[in-house]
Amino acid sequence: MVLGIDPGTAVTGYGVVRKEGRNPLTLVECGVIRTKPRDDLAQRLAEIHDGVAELIRRHKPTVLSIEDIFYARNVRTTVVLGHARGVILLAGAQAGIEIHEYPPSEIKKAVAGTGAATKLQVQFMVMRLLRLKSAPQPTDAADGVAAALAFALAPDLPKIQPIRFSVR
Amino acid sequence: MVLGIDPGTAVTGYGVVRKEGRNPLTLVECGVIRTKPRDDLAQRLAEIHDGVAELIRRHKPTVLSIEDIFYARNVRTTVVLGHARGVILLAGAQAGIEIHEYPPSEIKKAVAGTGAATKLQVQFMVMRLLRLKSAPQPTDAADGVAAALAFALAPDLPKIQPIRFSVR
Repeated sequence: MVLGIDPGTAVTGYGVVRKEGRNPLTLVECGVIRTKPRDDLAQRLAEIHDGVAELIRRHKPTVLSIEDIFYARNVRTTVVLGHARGVILLAGAQAGIEIHEYPPSEIKKAVAGTGAATKLQVQFMVMRLLRLKSAPQPTDAADGVAAALAFALAPDLPKIQPIRFSVR
Repeated sequence: MVLGIDPGTAVTGYGVVRKEGRNPLTLVECGVIRTKPRDDLAQRLAEIHDGVAELIRRHKPTVLSIEDIFYARNVRTTVVLGHARGVILLAGAQAGIEIHEYPPSEIKKAVAGTGAATKLQVQFMVMRLLRLKSAPQPTDAADGVAAALAFALAPDLPKIQPIRFSVR
Protein backbone atom coordinates (compact mmCIF):
# COMPACT_ATOMS: atom_id res chain seq x y z
CA MET A 1 0.00 0.00 0.00
CA VAL A 2 1.46 3.35 -1.08
CA LEU A 3 0.24 6.77 0.10
CA GLY A 4 1.05 9.49 -2.44
CA ILE A 5 0.95 13.15 -1.43
CA ASP A 6 1.02 16.39 -3.42
CA PRO A 7 1.62 18.95 -0.67
CA GLY A 8 0.05 22.41 -0.49
CA THR A 9 -1.03 24.79 2.28
CA ALA A 10 -4.46 25.40 0.73
CA VAL A 11 -5.03 22.02 -0.93
CA THR A 12 -3.05 18.83 -0.28
CA GLY A 13 -3.89 16.05 -2.73
CA TYR A 14 -3.54 12.38 -1.81
CA GLY A 15 -3.95 8.96 -3.34
CA VAL A 16 -3.73 5.47 -1.87
CA VAL A 17 -2.63 2.77 -4.31
CA ARG A 18 -2.44 -0.97 -3.66
CA LYS A 19 0.31 -3.03 -5.23
CA GLU A 20 0.18 -6.82 -4.75
CA GLY A 21 2.78 -8.93 -6.49
CA ARG A 22 2.15 -9.07 -10.24
CA ASN A 23 -1.50 -7.98 -9.91
CA PRO A 24 -2.49 -4.72 -11.61
CA LEU A 25 -2.29 -1.64 -9.39
CA THR A 26 -5.58 -0.55 -7.82
CA LEU A 27 -6.75 2.79 -6.48
CA VAL A 28 -8.01 2.45 -2.91
CA GLU A 29 -8.87 6.10 -2.20
CA CYS A 30 -8.01 9.57 -3.36
CA GLY A 31 -9.04 13.08 -2.41
CA VAL A 32 -7.85 16.38 -0.98
CA ILE A 33 -7.24 17.94 2.43
CA ARG A 34 -8.51 21.50 2.15
CA THR A 35 -7.70 24.25 4.66
CA LYS A 36 -9.36 27.63 5.14
CA PRO A 37 -7.38 30.65 3.87
CA ARG A 38 -8.75 32.64 6.84
CA ASP A 39 -7.18 30.36 9.44
CA ASP A 40 -3.67 31.14 10.55
CA LEU A 41 -0.81 29.04 9.22
CA ALA A 42 -0.31 27.03 12.45
CA GLN A 43 -3.97 25.96 12.43
CA ARG A 44 -3.80 24.98 8.76
CA LEU A 45 -0.61 22.96 9.38
CA ALA A 46 -2.39 21.11 12.21
CA GLU A 47 -5.23 20.19 9.82
CA ILE A 48 -2.80 18.93 7.16
CA HIS A 49 -0.85 16.90 9.74
CA ASP A 50 -4.00 15.39 11.25
CA GLY A 51 -5.39 14.59 7.81
CA VAL A 52 -2.26 12.74 6.71
CA ALA A 53 -1.90 10.97 10.09
CA GLU A 54 -5.51 9.82 9.78
CA LEU A 55 -4.91 8.42 6.28
CA ILE A 56 -1.88 6.51 7.58
CA ARG A 57 -3.89 5.09 10.50
CA ARG A 58 -6.73 4.03 8.19
CA HIS A 59 -4.77 2.50 5.31
CA LYS A 60 -1.52 1.46 7.01
CA PRO A 61 0.67 2.18 3.94
CA THR A 62 4.24 0.88 3.99
CA VAL A 63 5.45 3.78 1.85
CA LEU A 64 4.82 7.52 1.78
CA SER A 65 5.63 8.92 -1.68
CA ILE A 66 5.74 12.73 -1.76
CA GLU A 67 6.41 15.41 -4.32
CA ASP A 68 9.74 17.10 -3.73
CA ILE A 69 9.74 20.85 -3.28
CA PHE A 70 8.79 22.84 -6.33
CA TYR A 71 10.78 26.07 -6.47
CA ALA A 72 8.06 28.57 -7.29
CA ARG A 73 9.09 31.89 -8.75
CA ASN A 74 7.81 33.46 -5.51
CA VAL A 75 10.20 32.52 -2.68
CA ARG A 76 7.52 33.23 -0.04
CA THR A 77 5.21 30.65 -1.69
CA THR A 78 7.97 28.05 -1.76
CA VAL A 79 8.82 28.64 1.90
CA VAL A 80 5.20 28.35 3.05
CA LEU A 81 4.97 25.12 1.03
CA GLY A 82 8.06 23.96 2.94
CA HIS A 83 6.05 24.34 6.19
CA ALA A 84 3.32 22.05 4.79
CA ARG A 85 5.86 19.45 3.60
CA GLY A 86 7.45 19.59 7.04
CA VAL A 87 4.31 18.45 8.86
CA ILE A 88 3.61 15.76 6.21
CA LEU A 89 7.14 14.29 6.51
CA LEU A 90 6.64 14.44 10.29
CA ALA A 91 3.43 12.37 10.05
CA GLY A 92 5.38 9.77 8.03
CA ALA A 93 8.29 9.71 10.49
CA GLN A 94 5.92 9.39 13.47
CA ALA A 95 4.29 6.35 11.83
CA GLY A 96 7.71 4.90 11.06
CA ILE A 97 6.99 4.37 7.38
CA GLU A 98 9.42 4.52 4.46
CA ILE A 99 9.49 7.92 2.75
CA HIS A 100 10.34 8.49 -0.93
CA GLU A 101 10.61 11.95 -2.49
CA TYR A 102 10.34 12.62 -6.22
CA PRO A 103 10.76 15.88 -8.12
CA PRO A 104 7.53 16.90 -9.96
CA SER A 105 9.15 16.16 -13.34
CA GLU A 106 9.99 12.56 -12.33
CA ILE A 107 6.42 11.95 -11.19
CA LYS A 108 5.10 13.25 -14.52
CA LYS A 109 7.61 11.14 -16.39
CA ALA A 110 6.64 8.00 -14.46
CA VAL A 111 2.93 8.31 -15.24
CA ALA A 112 2.90 10.16 -18.58
CA GLY A 113 6.30 9.37 -20.09
CA THR A 114 7.52 12.97 -20.08
CA GLY A 115 8.56 15.40 -17.36
CA ALA A 116 6.81 18.17 -19.30
CA ALA A 117 3.35 16.53 -19.14
CA THR A 118 0.43 18.89 -18.44
CA LYS A 119 -1.99 18.55 -15.50
CA LEU A 120 -4.58 17.16 -17.95
CA GLN A 121 -2.18 14.52 -19.32
CA VAL A 122 -1.36 13.43 -15.76
CA GLN A 123 -5.08 13.19 -14.90
CA PHE A 124 -5.71 11.16 -18.07
CA MET A 125 -2.82 8.77 -17.53
CA VAL A 126 -3.72 8.23 -13.86
CA MET A 127 -7.18 7.22 -15.09
CA ARG A 128 -5.73 4.85 -17.71
CA LEU A 129 -3.10 3.24 -15.48
CA LEU A 130 -5.65 2.49 -12.75
CA ARG A 131 -8.50 1.63 -15.17
CA LEU A 132 -10.83 4.26 -13.70
CA LYS A 133 -14.13 5.31 -15.36
CA SER A 134 -13.27 9.00 -14.86
CA ALA A 135 -10.22 11.06 -13.92
CA PRO A 136 -9.70 11.86 -10.22
CA GLN A 137 -11.02 15.33 -9.36
CA PRO A 138 -9.71 17.93 -8.55
CA THR A 139 -6.31 17.80 -10.26
CA ASP A 140 -4.62 17.94 -6.81
CA ALA A 141 -6.13 14.53 -6.02
CA ALA A 142 -4.81 13.20 -9.36
CA ASP A 143 -1.38 14.63 -8.48
CA GLY A 144 -1.48 12.79 -5.14
CA VAL A 145 -2.30 9.54 -6.97
CA ALA A 146 0.48 10.26 -9.48
CA ALA A 147 2.96 10.59 -6.57
CA ALA A 148 1.89 7.13 -5.35
CA LEU A 149 2.24 5.73 -8.88
CA ALA A 150 5.75 7.19 -9.21
CA PHE A 151 6.84 4.82 -6.44
CA ALA A 152 4.59 1.91 -7.43
CA LEU A 153 5.76 1.94 -11.06
CA ALA A 154 9.42 2.69 -10.33
CA PRO A 155 10.73 -0.90 -10.60
CA ASP A 156 9.10 -1.18 -14.06
CA LEU A 157 10.85 1.90 -15.40
CA PRO A 158 13.92 1.23 -17.53
CA LYS A 159 17.05 1.78 -15.48
CA ILE A 160 20.38 2.90 -16.78
CA GLN A 161 23.06 0.67 -15.30
CA PRO A 162 25.79 2.87 -13.81
CA ILE A 163 29.28 2.06 -15.07
CA ARG A 164 31.70 1.53 -12.21
CA PHE A 165 35.36 2.16 -12.55
CA SER A 166 37.67 0.55 -10.09
CA VAL A 167 40.72 2.62 -9.31
CA ARG A 168 43.69 0.83 -7.82
CA MET B 1 5.43 32.03 30.70
CA VAL B 2 6.79 32.61 27.20
CA LEU B 3 8.59 29.99 25.08
CA GLY B 4 10.89 31.61 22.54
CA ILE B 5 12.20 29.63 19.57
CA ASP B 6 14.94 30.28 17.01
CA PRO B 7 14.22 27.56 14.44
CA GLY B 8 16.83 25.56 12.54
CA THR B 9 17.10 22.04 11.11
CA ALA B 10 20.51 21.41 12.68
CA VAL B 11 20.16 23.50 15.84
CA THR B 12 16.93 24.96 17.24
CA GLY B 13 17.50 27.39 20.11
CA TYR B 14 14.91 27.92 22.84
CA GLY B 15 14.37 30.02 25.93
CA VAL B 16 11.63 29.99 28.56
CA VAL B 17 11.01 33.35 30.23
CA ARG B 18 8.65 34.06 33.13
CA LYS B 19 6.79 37.36 33.27
CA GLU B 20 4.69 38.05 36.38
CA GLY B 21 2.98 41.43 36.68
CA ARG B 22 5.51 44.17 37.39
CA ASN B 23 8.22 41.75 38.58
CA PRO B 24 11.45 41.63 36.61
CA LEU B 25 11.57 38.98 33.88
CA THR B 26 13.29 35.72 34.82
CA LEU B 27 14.93 33.03 32.73
CA VAL B 28 13.48 29.61 33.56
CA GLU B 29 15.45 27.50 31.06
CA CYS B 30 17.29 27.79 27.80
CA GLY B 31 19.14 25.45 25.49
CA VAL B 32 19.19 23.86 22.06
CA ILE B 33 17.58 20.94 20.27
CA ARG B 34 20.33 19.43 18.14
CA THR B 35 19.72 16.95 15.30
CA LYS B 36 22.18 14.70 13.48
CA PRO B 37 23.15 15.78 9.96
CA ARG B 38 23.31 12.09 8.99
CA ASP B 39 19.64 11.45 9.79
CA ASP B 40 17.11 12.07 7.04
CA LEU B 41 15.02 15.23 7.16
CA ALA B 42 11.82 13.48 8.34
CA GLN B 43 13.65 12.00 11.34
CA ARG B 44 15.18 15.37 12.22
CA LEU B 45 11.79 17.06 11.96
CA ALA B 46 10.34 14.46 14.35
CA GLU B 47 13.10 15.26 16.88
CA ILE B 48 12.47 19.01 16.63
CA HIS B 49 8.71 18.51 16.98
CA ASP B 50 9.08 16.19 19.97
CA GLY B 51 11.59 18.53 21.63
CA VAL B 52 9.31 21.55 21.36
CA ALA B 53 6.21 19.54 22.40
CA GLU B 54 8.13 18.32 25.46
CA LEU B 55 9.11 21.91 26.42
CA ILE B 56 5.45 22.95 26.14
CA ARG B 57 4.31 20.02 28.32
CA ARG B 58 6.95 20.78 30.94
CA HIS B 59 6.63 24.58 31.19
CA LYS B 60 3.03 25.14 30.04
CA PRO B 61 3.79 28.49 28.34
CA THR B 62 0.81 30.63 27.31
CA VAL B 63 2.74 32.09 24.39
CA LEU B 64 5.05 30.68 21.71
CA SER B 65 7.24 33.44 20.28
CA ILE B 66 9.11 32.42 17.15
CA GLU B 67 11.53 34.01 14.71
CA ASP B 68 9.88 34.68 11.38
CA ILE B 69 11.49 33.17 8.31
CA PHE B 70 14.86 34.56 7.40
CA TYR B 71 15.26 34.66 3.64
CA ALA B 72 18.72 33.20 3.24
CA ARG B 73 20.57 33.85 0.01
CA ASN B 74 20.30 30.13 -0.67
CA VAL B 75 16.64 29.31 -1.46
CA ARG B 76 17.18 25.62 -0.62
CA THR B 77 18.33 26.58 2.91
CA THR B 78 15.31 28.82 3.41
CA VAL B 79 12.92 26.10 2.24
CA VAL B 80 14.43 23.45 4.53
CA LEU B 81 14.16 25.97 7.39
CA GLY B 82 10.47 26.30 6.43
CA HIS B 83 10.06 22.56 7.13
CA ALA B 84 11.48 23.05 10.65
CA ARG B 85 9.26 26.07 11.34
CA GLY B 86 6.28 24.03 10.12
CA VAL B 87 6.67 21.33 12.78
CA ILE B 88 7.33 23.96 15.50
CA LEU B 89 4.17 25.92 14.61
CA LEU B 90 2.36 22.57 14.59
CA ALA B 91 3.52 21.80 18.15
CA GLY B 92 2.15 25.22 19.23
CA ALA B 93 -1.18 24.69 17.45
CA GLN B 94 -1.55 21.19 18.92
CA ALA B 95 -1.08 22.62 22.44
CA GLY B 96 -3.55 25.43 21.66
CA ILE B 97 -1.17 28.20 22.71
CA GLU B 98 -0.95 31.73 21.34
CA ILE B 99 1.70 32.11 18.61
CA HIS B 100 3.59 35.34 17.86
CA GLU B 101 6.03 35.67 14.97
CA TYR B 102 8.73 38.35 14.79
CA PRO B 103 11.20 39.12 12.01
CA PRO B 104 14.84 38.68 13.15
CA SER B 105 15.39 42.46 12.98
CA GLU B 106 12.48 43.15 15.36
CA ILE B 107 13.80 40.63 17.88
CA LYS B 108 17.24 42.27 17.76
CA LYS B 109 15.67 45.70 18.12
CA ALA B 110 13.59 44.60 21.13
CA VAL B 111 16.59 43.29 23.08
CA ALA B 112 19.49 45.41 21.77
CA GLY B 113 17.81 48.59 20.51
CA THR B 114 18.79 48.07 16.88
CA GLY B 115 17.75 45.64 14.15
CA ALA B 116 21.38 45.51 13.05
CA ALA B 117 22.69 44.14 16.39
CA THR B 118 25.31 41.39 16.13
CA LYS B 119 25.00 37.88 17.66
CA LEU B 120 27.39 39.01 20.41
CA GLN B 121 25.35 42.12 21.23
CA VAL B 122 22.20 39.99 21.45
CA GLN B 123 23.97 37.51 23.78
CA PHE B 124 25.21 40.38 25.95
CA MET B 125 21.83 42.12 26.17
CA VAL B 126 19.99 38.86 26.95
CA MET B 127 22.43 38.43 29.86
CA ARG B 128 21.85 42.01 31.04
CA LEU B 129 18.06 42.01 30.71
CA LEU B 130 17.73 38.76 32.67
CA ARG B 131 20.54 39.57 35.18
CA LEU B 132 22.50 36.41 34.30
CA LYS B 133 26.09 35.78 35.44
CA SER B 134 27.08 34.67 31.94
CA ALA B 135 25.61 34.79 28.45
CA PRO B 136 23.53 31.81 27.29
CA GLN B 137 25.59 29.39 25.19
CA PRO B 138 25.57 28.60 22.29
CA THR B 139 24.33 31.72 20.48
CA ASP B 140 21.32 29.72 19.22
CA ALA B 141 20.11 29.38 22.82
CA ALA B 142 20.55 33.16 23.29
CA ASP B 143 18.55 33.71 20.10
CA GLY B 144 15.75 31.54 21.47
CA VAL B 145 15.73 33.59 24.70
CA ALA B 146 15.76 36.79 22.61
CA ALA B 147 12.64 35.58 20.74
CA ALA B 148 10.90 35.10 24.11
CA LEU B 149 12.04 38.57 25.23
CA ALA B 150 10.70 40.14 22.01
CA PHE B 151 7.21 39.17 23.16
CA ALA B 152 7.78 39.74 26.88
CA LEU B 153 9.17 43.26 26.36
CA ALA B 154 6.78 44.25 23.57
CA PRO B 155 4.29 46.17 25.77
CA ASP B 156 7.16 48.27 27.14
CA LEU B 157 8.35 49.35 23.71
CA PRO B 158 7.26 52.85 22.72
CA LYS B 159 4.26 52.67 20.42
CA ILE B 160 3.35 55.14 17.75
CA GLN B 161 -0.33 55.97 18.05
CA PRO B 162 -1.95 55.56 14.67
CA ILE B 163 -3.88 58.61 13.49
CA ARG B 164 -7.41 57.72 12.46
CA PHE B 165 -9.32 59.71 9.94
CA SER B 166 -13.05 59.36 9.88
CA VAL B 167 -14.47 59.72 6.40
CA ARG B 168 -18.15 60.59 6.15
